Amino acid sequence: MLIVKKFGGSSVANKERVYNVAERILEDYKKGHKVVVVLSAQGDTTDELIAKAKEINPNPSRREMDMLLTTGEQQSVSLMAMALENLGYPAISLNAFQVKMETTSVYSNARLKRIDSERINSELERRNIVLVTGFQGVNRYDDITTLGRGGSDTTAVAIAAALNADKCEIYTDVEGVYTADPRVVKDAKKIDEITYDEMLELASLGAKVLHNRSVEVAKKYGVELVVRSSLTSAEGTIVREECKVEKMLVSGVAGDKNVARIAVVGIKDEPGKAFELFSLLAKNNINVDIILQSIGRDGTKDISFTVPRDVLEDAKKVIEDNLGRLCAQKVEYDDQVAKVSVVGAGMASNPGVASLMFESLYDSGINIKMISTSEIKISVLLDEKDTERAMNAIHEGFKDRF
Amino acid sequence: MLIVKKFGGSSVANKERVYNVAERILEDYKKGHKVVVVLSAQGDTTDELIAKAKEINPNPSRREMDMLLTTGEQQSVSLMAMALENLGYPAISLNAFQVKMETTSVYSNARLKRIDSERINSELERRNIVLVTGFQGVNRYDDITTLGRGGSDTTAVAIAAALNADKCEIYTDVEGVYTADPRVVKDAKKIDEITYDEMLELASLGAKVLHNRSVEVAKKYGVELVVRSSLTSAEGTIVREECKVEKMLVSGVAGDKNVARIAVVGIKDEPGKAFELFSLLAKNNINVDIILQSIGRDGTKDISFTVPRDVLEDAKKVIEDNLGRLCAQKVEYDDQVAKVSVVGAGMASNPGVASLMFESLYDSGINIKMISTSEIKISVLLDEKDTERAMNAIHEGFKDRF
Repeated sequence: MLIVKKFGGSSVANKERVYNVAERILEDYKKGHKVVVVLSAQGDTTDELIAKAKEINPNPSRREMDMLLTTGEQQSVSLMAMALENLGYPAISLNAFQVKMETTSVYSNARLKRIDSERINSELERRNIVLVTGFQGVNRYDDITTLGRGGSDTTAVAIAAALNADKCEIYTDVEGVYTADPRVVKDAKKIDEITYDEMLELASLGAKVLHNRSVEVAKKYGVELVVRSSLTSAEGTIVREECKVEKMLVSGVAGDKNVARIAVVGIKDEPGKAFELFSLLAKNNINVDIILQSIGRDGTKDISFTVPRDVLEDAKKVIEDNLGRLCAQKVEYDDQVAKVSVVGAGMASNPGVASLMFESLYDSGINIKMISTSEIKISVLLDEKDTERAMNAIHEGFKDRF
Repeated sequence: MLIVKKFGGSSVANKERVYNVAERILEDYKKGHKVVVVLSAQGDTTDELIAKAKEINPNPSRREMDMLLTTGEQQSVSLMAMALENLGYPAISLNAFQVKMETTSVYSNARLKRIDSERINSELERRNIVLVTGFQGVNRYDDITTLGRGGSDTTAVAIAAALNADKCEIYTDVEGVYTADPRVVKDAKKIDEITYDEMLELASLGAKVLHNRSVEVAKKYGVELVVRSSLTSAEGTIVREECKVEKMLVSGVAGDKNVARIAVVGIKDEPGKAFELFSLLAKNNINVDIILQSIGRDGTKDISFTVPRDVLEDAKKVIEDNLGRLCAQKVEYDDQVAKVSVVGAGMASNPGVASLMFESLYDSGINIKMISTSEIKISVLLDEKDTERAMNAIHEGFKDRF
């Protein structure tokens, strides 16, 4: 069997953890499997390098930042190779150049285009354990790029796809994907299986277990993912196209506090005004999530929508600068909101989900400010202070449906 | 003009020093020159990485060690690029892969074979200041190699040769090459010009200003070197094929304490015995320096020779293991010795140098244990405790000849 394993930075933060991971790697290697391991930079290395850069230049170019940050993963893979050698096993570390991990040219947020599997395959043929730097790539000009935070997940999935691996295991510090964040909802249960689409919704709704793009790549190439703990031998969560166990109604509840609401009140009710607003925001790279348009009166309408809270200031500036063009009476901002969602592939064919969700919130006296639905999720906007209570209430309401 | 500048690790150890070097770089760039800069890893980075590796594996493979250590230079060049960008100048950092710095396959001590000047040239054409990682290369299998300690000097000289640069400046923490180590001989004077051959002798005799191999490469390709301080604007020392100023008798006095003497007493006086001894040592990678063979008596002879003190234990083992084959009566070891040398291209045609040297030592009551001469140097072996006194006495004796 050919297995790709990915370990995050905290899993290799110090000598003890490096050896712990080495043992996990060897479990499969000793069984005769071929093993490729993708590693992130150790512990806080990336943050330390960023601090070092900012000390020199508060606003460094992305190209040089990528050049700097990618040294972190190179250190991880070489140290892991040394640990495996010390245990008496053959290992070889490879960086993005060496496996020709070609990406687009966008520094700090590149997308993987192509991996040359030749080098990795030839090392596997020699029975080497192959350790590959996560997070990084090389563009067509031979310049070093990075895939953005969490990009090592994507590296692992892409390698698994390129090598046609039998399994791709993403190791984290939790035992898998949960029906809700276990730190918030104490009854949260580990999910045994989940579909790519559900995982994508969960990831984008605030569950931080997997890098969103890694799930997209896994779905595109049909790579079966396993999310599991690097500290225990628990089974973990399988992410695949279709779940083999009987489909549960919902697979999880997610909460996201990186949300702010903007209400543009009294826009002239004529065609193109909403388009004008959202195209302005898009031009400024501001992602809009839930949108609600009310039928107004006196020839005006109100549009409210949410944006990530960390771009609220940018959004404010764009809107204030264009108030005249938009012909709006006033704009209101609210950064004390949060989004809580339920996700589940079984939801599409079951109209009872929304009402059960709303009932759970009503029973707890929680006010809903906005609602947004898709085929496999329902999101509600509520006061930030209600987030944890809402997650628990909804989780409790669906407890027999997970 | 195209200028290659090399700065060592201590010159870029922290933010202040990085900016100090940035200003030195800009002096020439602002005049319209093309500037390529070779950097070592910051301050103690290399030692810290070695410590990190040894913690994981006391005896790591050289391949993985090279993979680890080369991250240090990559951090240096990217941080320097950020500093230059912050000052408003265009800069680009490049690692060994990017400039196709091809080396032999020997990890941790590779030799440079070829540099692709295309990338560097095209960046220079765009008026970028080009920052290249010193010390590292890539072998024909795409694996990362290093050139050994001090290898960044060689990187700089090789780049200067490949680009046909007008100048190659090696910046250090002293103002140039001195007639003796200024910390030992207070009257030591900076040398204005010195030939490649003299510099090679001085370097191999213990003067630690330039990496030996960098001088070999400079000589081979006729690259004119300037050794100068990164802290002052003093002129420095020019290293070239022939010196333009009137040739001085001697150019410098060097002391080396990494020496031990071995005396093999009472070897059977028959052909091949000396050969046997030295081929045994060579096979075990032990370099022998001064050799002295005495005419013995009773059909035996004595051979004494010096080895670097840090391989004395290895040499001991080889000799003890082979005492029977050598048919020697006994072996004596002395690790309390040092070598003091005078170097000078003018020496060859001037027979008075040796006697002046011996006279200076005699006047100071210093005993000479062994003597070795070449075309352009004379070395004597003496008690380690006499080293500094001998260097001063010889320097004083030659004071009108520098």
